[in-house]
Amino acid sequence: MSDMTSTADAPRSPGRPRSLRADEAIIEATLDLLAEGSTIEALSIEAIAARAGVGKATIYRRWAGKDALLLDALRRLKGILPQPEGHSVRDDLVLLVGAIGKNVDPRASKIMPCLVPEVNRSPDHFRLYQNIIAPRRQLMREVLRRGIDEGLLRPDIDLEVTMALLTGPMLIQRVLQWNPELDERALPEQVVDAVLEGIRPR
Amino acid sequence: MSDMTSTADAPRSPGRPRSLRADEAIIEATLDLLAEGSTIEALSIEAIAARAGVGKATIYRRWAGKDALLLDALRRLKGILPQPEGHSVRDDLVLLVGAIGKNVDPRASKIMPCLVPEVNRSPDHFRLYQNIIAPRRQLMREVLRRGIDEGLLRPDIDLEVTMALLTGPMLIQRVLQWNPELDERALPEQVVDAVLEGIRPR
Repeated sequence: MSDMTSTADAPRSPGRPRSLRADEAIIEATLDLLAEGSTIEALSIEAIAARAGVGKATIYRRWAGKDALLLDALRRLKGILPQPEGHSVRDDLVLLVGAIGKNVDPRASKIMPCLVPEVNRSPDHFRLYQNIIAPRRQLMREVLRRGIDEGLLRPDIDLEVTMALLTGPMLIQRVLQWNPELDERALPEQVVDAVLEGIRPR
Repeated sequence: MSDMTSTADAPRSPGRPRSLRADEAIIEATLDLLAEGSTIEALSIEAIAARAGVGKATIYRRWAGKDALLLDALRRLKGILPQPEGHSVRDDLVLLVGAIGKNVDPRASKIMPCLVPEVNRSPDHFRLYQNIIAPRRQLMREVLRRGIDEGLLRPDIDLEVTMALLTGPMLIQRVLQWNPELDERALPEQVVDAVLEGIRPR
């Protein structure tokens, strides 16, 4: 993954809107093909080029290969990273939990679940997917560490388990519509408060 | 779903092993086709009959239609319900959390994630899926109610939120391999204890 070119980092000469439009069309074509049920395996640079109305060379000029393009396309799907305010640990956790699975792009709900079995069969694709979610996980880890430093959270908690506790309920509700009895809007606060307090009498 | 015939309830005349073998082949053919990437929509009684090596009439003799057959096939995938012992609330929760996403059949990891977007687009399929998971959810709800009755859990906890807290981490780890840092075998106890105690200092 180290040789990939990302949309954000690539230098771009000024006054070339046509190349920008081509990039956009290529990303859109990739997401469209995935949303229509193409597997990662079956997805080809040829098919993406045809759908985007560009030549294969245009794609290879911007991305090292299919995986680099896929990484950019899936990042687009996830939207921008939420920004914790840094005042209240509880409020920052509510913000981060509320952002989980809240994909801006409606194609995400078609693409993401089906991607899972495929991603898990291939170490390369697994790494690619972890690259996308790692920065979000890191944000939450930092808020929890701040809570420990400030004495608001127990110093002996397992950070990875705590993140799974905060993430899991929101993810299964947003992605799987797991339980019709749950109110998705109230869930971030309910989850954070329950994880903070526990369910045993204090 | 009320007119369906389920594998467990259907009367079967003795001495007809051939019909039992046919049932088995039909269920297997259904799961195979789904695991190979067939959508619920595209799955046809014709295709299932062809794969199972039986006539369509054999299928309709046992199941009212595709949805009834699908319900039986997906139930098979989920395996049998775990049995809480009824002594320790904590141990029963650990047992139930450990059973989450622990599908016996290796085809489950290919079938279940991809099913989600499709299931959520159709109210009928959503009901069908809820029918499969509702009994598991009910088992956990009963253990939590017992904990409240015994004074081990706070009486004001939200049962549905608590179930999402117990279920979510295990489900995302088993189905999505969410975080490589987590130890799947240790997770049921870690999740139950963290949910019981909370992460604030007591």
